[in-house]
Amino acid sequence: MTVLGASPAPEGTTSKASAASLQRVQAPIRERLDNVTGEMWRTVATDAPLVSQMSAHLMAMRGKMFRPTLVLLSSAVENRPDHSAITLAAAVELIHLATLVHDDAVDHSVLRRGMPTLNSLFSHQISVIMGDFLYSSALTRLVGVGNLEALRVLTRASTEMTIGELRQLAVTSPLEFTEGDYFTLIRSKTASLISAACEIGTLCGAAEHRETLARFGEELGMAFQITDDLIDYTEAASTTGKPTGIDLREHKMTLPLIAAMRTMSATERRTVESLFAAEHPEDQEIAEVIRIVTANGGLDYAREAAARHAAEAAKTLDALPDTVARAALFESISYVMERHA
Amino acid sequence: MTVLGASPAPEGTTSKASAASLQRVQAPIRERLDNVTGEMWRTVATDAPLVSQMSAHLMAMRGKMFRPTLVLLSSAVENRPDHSAITLAAAVELIHLATLVHDDAVDHSVLRRGMPTLNSLFSHQISVIMGDFLYSSALTRLVGVGNLEALRVLTRASTEMTIGELRQLAVTSPLEFTEGDYFTLIRSKTASLISAACEIGTLCGAAEHRETLARFGEELGMAFQITDDLIDYTEAASTTGKPTGIDLREHKMTLPLIAAMRTMSATERRTVESLFAAEHPEDQEIAEVIRIVTANGGLDYAREAAARHAAEAAKTLDALPDTVARAALFESISYVMERHA
Repeated sequence: MTVLGASPAPEGTTSKASAASLQRVQAPIRERLDNVTGEMWRTVATDAPLVSQMSAHLMAMRGKMFRPTLVLLSSAVENRPDHSAITLAAAVELIHLATLVHDDAVDHSVLRRGMPTLNSLFSHQISVIMGDFLYSSALTRLVGVGNLEALRVLTRASTEMTIGELRQLAVTSPLEFTEGDYFTLIRSKTASLISAACEIGTLCGAAEHRETLARFGEELGMAFQITDDLIDYTEAASTTGKPTGIDLREHKMTLPLIAAMRTMSATERRTVESLFAAEHPEDQEIAEVIRIVTANGGLDYAREAAARHAAEAAKTLDALPDTVARAALFESISYVMERHA
Repeated sequence: MTVLGASPAPEGTTSKASAASLQRVQAPIRERLDNVTGEMWRTVATDAPLVSQMSAHLMAMRGKMFRPTLVLLSSAVENRPDHSAITLAAAVELIHLATLVHDDAVDHSVLRRGMPTLNSLFSHQISVIMGDFLYSSALTRLVGVGNLEALRVLTRASTEMTIGELRQLAVTSPLEFTEGDYFTLIRSKTASLISAACEIGTLCGAAEHRETLARFGEELGMAFQITDDLIDYTEAASTTGKPTGIDLREHKMTLPLIAAMRTMSATERRTVESLFAAEHPEDQEIAEVIRIVTANGGLDYAREAAARHAAEAAKTLDALPDTVARAALFESISYVMERHA
């Protein structure tokens, strides 16, 4: 996800370090994570051929199951995880998928995690309704489990995400977007569901840590999104060897640029303004703005902000007993931070 | 709503008889219905200006509040309605609005109930996310009430509606659409939510009639949709004085045509096929197919089908005690049937 009108977390982004880290995070719950996949299948099962076809495609393109991982680990921090965590984990991932499907439909995106999006394979119409189906099915299943608290947390997070997205779509002058606006936005759009994942995990076996893990998830989610937005400035595309700068191309204002604007010269600012005024900015313009943002310390500023949230996340874990699950949650912070190589 | 890829119930359609009938239906719950409007406002309240602006527009264009009416009447059939029916009624109407917003977005509709649609006023993107917001907010509020059974009924109905819509969007050869397909479709797309409205009403003061009123709502919903689809063939547009035939124009196969196909001559069938092959059928072609459908008894067939469901609906009410609410529910059947003048 990026800030001004965009799609969530490119979880496809990865490095060797982060892949190893994710493996360590998921090791304690590997088997249960496979059960989550099975539960997701069962939740979206219908006898409508089109729906099954789309579900199969989505299941094939599902990402690293980061949110279900957090549900399962949170439920295990007292070493007494409850089996219903699997259903909740499946529901969280389906809700996440529903938002991705709607984001891709809204953005007319063609690819997601290297695979064609539903809207490009089927149609825009079908994607909108399929997103609704995924969300409704997830909630229907949650109601079936009868966990009213989990429903409370997840419907609230879903509402929060839509408000975040609507705030984002309402932005007409991206260059006036402030650091405060940015943090409000990523809190709604990304941190809310990651926090919800951690919180509902505790409802299945570790209820005494509900607030702690909700706070952990919120800090982790903030670090996650800031890092994602950094990747757009730093990670070289495999084809060109240069950062793709997709956010800049789409006139999305994220933390590195917001921070860099403060110290830019008048000339540099004009270069940025010219990029934001161009409907289809040239590669050269993108590269120049990335250079300006870097030179003005925008990347360092964002890295420090991400690190601050990561440190806060780590601190909240101190309140938990020393278990394998807690160690894995610690490791999940490294995973989130290492995604930008 | 119409059958092959369309938007729900044109509740704007009305006649003098049906307006008088609706007034009689709503008389016993008039005051509580106003409370439902207030509750809808509270449910969608946010501090995001764009969201408030859109909510205000939707509240201005809301229809006859037929589904909330059914919730309130059903909760009163034992003369001991529970106050929480108001919240449930508001949630049902918000869910209904969410589906209208997505339907309009998907169909790129410009007008709804004589007012500009959200997608035409704002943007298609914004409409998709606003629909999500309405649905999430409604569910968040329902969770707040803590009525797990109402959540069960409504999330199931919502899932059912999305499956219906996806089945509809999957139709590639509308002329092969059978009567069975049609009934399956309208049961999912229309009857499911009307049935859910009646069912959740009983959860607030008349739980012993839950099954009866769920069945009543299903029959009423079937009659409602068949009648809606008939209106497309019979009701004269105010401008031309001739039926608009919007469904035919959009290549949507509804019951009158399905029935008429059985007795058509080969020549008549070719006229129908030619209309369905034309991207933008001429007014004259539409008028000719309406004539053919009428001549082959398609309208009579659909009228009888609607009447059969109306009679079934009436019969289920026999199981209820003789109260003002029951009388109003009887009257709601007349309202549904009289909408086609």
